[in-house]
Amino acid sequence: MKLEQRYEGKAKRVYATADPHEYVVEYKDDATAFNGVKKAQVAGKGEINNAITAHLYPLLERAGIPTHFLERLSDREQRVRAVEIIPVEVIVRNVAAGSFCKRLGLEEGTELARPVVEYCYKSDALGDPLINTDTAVALGWATEEELTRIRELALKVRDFLTPYFEARGIRLIDFKLEFGRTHDGQVVLADEISPDTCRFWDAATGEKLDKDRFRRDLGGVEDAYAEMLRRVTALA
Amino acid sequence: MKLEQRYEGKAKRVYATADPHEYVVEYKDDATAFNGVKKAQVAGKGEINNAITAHLYPLLERAGIPTHFLERLSDREQRVRAVEIIPVEVIVRNVAAGSFCKRLGLEEGTELARPVVEYCYKSDALGDPLINTDTAVALGWATEEELTRIRELALKVRDFLTPYFEARGIRLIDFKLEFGRTHDGQVVLADEISPDTCRFWDAATGEKLDKDRFRRDLGGVEDAYAEMLRRVTALA
Repeated sequence: MKLEQRYEGKAKRVYATADPHEYVVEYKDDATAFNGVKKAQVAGKGEINNAITAHLYPLLERAGIPTHFLERLSDREQRVRAVEIIPVEVIVRNVAAGSFCKRLGLEEGTELARPVVEYCYKSDALGDPLINTDTAVALGWATEEELTRIRELALKVRDFLTPYFEARGIRLIDFKLEFGRTHDGQVVLADEISPDTCRFWDAATGEKLDKDRFRRDLGGVEDAYAEMLRRVTALA
Repeated sequence: MKLEQRYEGKAKRVYATADPHEYVVEYKDDATAFNGVKKAQVAGKGEINNAITAHLYPLLERAGIPTHFLERLSDREQRVRAVEIIPVEVIVRNVAAGSFCKRLGLEEGTELARPVVEYCYKSDALGDPLINTDTAVALGWATEEELTRIRELALKVRDFLTPYFEARGIRLIDFKLEFGRTHDGQVVLADEISPDTCRFWDAATGEKLDKDRFRRDLGGVEDAYAEMLRRVTALA
């Protein structure tokens, strides 16, 4: 089924298939942080992130958010629609954390009066710098119409996921999304939604159940990812 | 006329007056760069920036942009409307230069397909970090309505100044604006427009006629500022 590799990212590989409109995505156990400076393997991470994404994307589709996801093929693989990734990463924040706090001198956990949508230029070489939407249009990374749609979809993802996780005892602090263009120009949610790309705090204890355990050397990384898979797939 | 000092910035002092709705602004010769790390005096800069701002703000008023400016009082002083500065600095870019190029890996002078409006949180302690408008609203620095108005006014300033300078042999590369709230809640252009806050390149030679001569140790800082005053006040 998999033909030549089309792309290798920090956590996934993407392969062409016999169908020009479909790819296979393979999830790796590789974990990186601080733009690749810190690297390790997290046993089972690929399987867990594949399973979490494969669980959530069909729910998002049903909530009116078009995604690249088609089906889970194996422990580490999923079949997706072939998209060209729009090089504008979208970060949605419910609560201040991470780089946002450092940049703005805020205490981690500061409540935000409204969700904040931030945009970064997807470039490992430049460290994914923060941009605004004018910049993406001026430099030809996306059209104004695509960015309007991306913002609308990102907020829709937030409006679905925030109560979804809340019902499972998890505060969704922030998350990163990537979008792609299909061959017919549709903007769809691509990439993954997992503890690699979200901040999840246990609602009762405040315990971090996401990649910050790896970034900040908190230990228990594998357990946190496994716990998040249990919560995501639990009935509310 | 001047009562107690209300604020001292890097290039200006602001004084209360007997009228609670008016301030006096005094322009200093102090030049700083890289968030205050580099400091010097530029002889005559205060007078020139006062004169350039006092020339441009009435023209902007006539072009439909409300400003804080009332009148030039002396070589270094102007009378302005008392405003509360909105802590969101606005940068408008016609051409890529400076920190924008460094951040995005662009060559200085790269044309932008459309003007780019960027926003920074006005904080010396944090180095005026880049933000987007959601952040300003979420953290209570400005309302959504104020930010919509600020963007509209910033682009209006650009649409006035770009041809104004072009007619005087100057390419307006980028500029920084600050806005304030008057006692009755109106958003008006505040601060200054000068070689301290704009990038001006000679249209024929490409020579820099702005604060980059100071930032980058190019020499001829005083001459460049004096030349800009001549150009600004020249008939087109």
